[in-house]
Amino acid sequence: MTAISKTLPTIKFLKEPTSREWVELAIANLDTILLDHSHCERKAAGVALNLMFRYPSNTKLVRELTAIAREELEHFEQVNQILESRGIQLGPLSSPPYAAGLKARIRRNEPERLLDSLLVAGLIEARSHERLGLLANNCSDRELAKFYRALMASEARHYGIYWVLATTYFERAIVTERLEELAVVESELLAVVHREPRIHS
Amino acid sequence: MTAISKTLPTIKFLKEPTSREWVELAIANLDTILLDHSHCERKAAGVALNLMFRYPSNTKLVRELTAIAREELEHFEQVNQILESRGIQLGPLSSPPYAAGLKARIRRNEPERLLDSLLVAGLIEARSHERLGLLANNCSDRELAKFYRALMASEARHYGIYWVLATTYFERAIVTERLEELAVVESELLAVVHREPRIHS
Repeated sequence: MTAISKTLPTIKFLKEPTSREWVELAIANLDTILLDHSHCERKAAGVALNLMFRYPSNTKLVRELTAIAREELEHFEQVNQILESRGIQLGPLSSPPYAAGLKARIRRNEPERLLDSLLVAGLIEARSHERLGLLANNCSDRELAKFYRALMASEARHYGIYWVLATTYFERAIVTERLEELAVVESELLAVVHREPRIHS
Repeated sequence: MTAISKTLPTIKFLKEPTSREWVELAIANLDTILLDHSHCERKAAGVALNLMFRYPSNTKLVRELTAIAREELEHFEQVNQILESRGIQLGPLSSPPYAAGLKARIRRNEPERLLDSLLVAGLIEARSHERLGLLANNCSDRELAKFYRALMASEARHYGIYWVLATTYFERAIVTERLEELAVVESELLAVVHREPRIHS
């Protein structure tokens, strides 16, 4: 393992950077992290697709999220190829409380539901971007480090797109205020590292 | 409208060919058919993704359905571009009883649920293949005819893949027998053309 002590990146949107404890847990369990990463890419495609289902009249949203869903599926395929080349069997994996905890904060009525859904999806992408960067910087496996670095740019683009969509359908002040609230929740959910190694432990 | 009387193609899997009545309804309502087609592509991607969620350990299924989901999203994008170029606004559209009718026949217990899910998805692809072919042959709009023809090959591949997956996880005799039963249901669901123009009216 290379220096965990490298400066942790600060990602716009995120209230608190990821702890060293998570990095150590993840680096010590890269096979499980890879398998969880596969699930994350498929889930991210599912989130984009569900939003397209729910808001079929929002042309810009549909267009942008189609592109995101396609890209997530491409990454899903790439992770699965790495899993296969390493002899790691695909299979189910329990989810950490992170996504469910965020989802519980999505308000049930429209238009708040749309705003919150976009911001939660954006926050998850932002955290994925940060953590893939940490994996890239701290992982001594060159193939994986290269792979994680290659994915970082897309994750960054994705959270940018969710932000832009939020400001397309809502006033900027409203978006900023709600993002602040949800970002606090997001960081709180990660304040205590979940005992099982996951991308969002 | 060009000759509806052209020989209707016979597609393996389908018990009964599509009626002339459907072709006439569809050709007279191409804008609605296009919008419904957009929904069909997105739903097809959703079906593939849901199966990947439900059977994450079935490596071959996951690999093949990832490719299908990616391709359906590509088609979804293409249909949406045609809609946009024609000034047809994206929006919701009520579903004909077809897919729900088929879904109701999927048995609830495993492993029957997997078998039925694959066969129902395959039957829907087979019917889409047949109907896109009918649209291509009977539509006087050259851009659309070309588009439908281009998509036919993929739809044919897709139903082939669902069939191969079924025979991967189940004995051929069991697959054939159940396919026969479901194919009868599929044709019955289309025996009376649904009053609203849809791909699966």
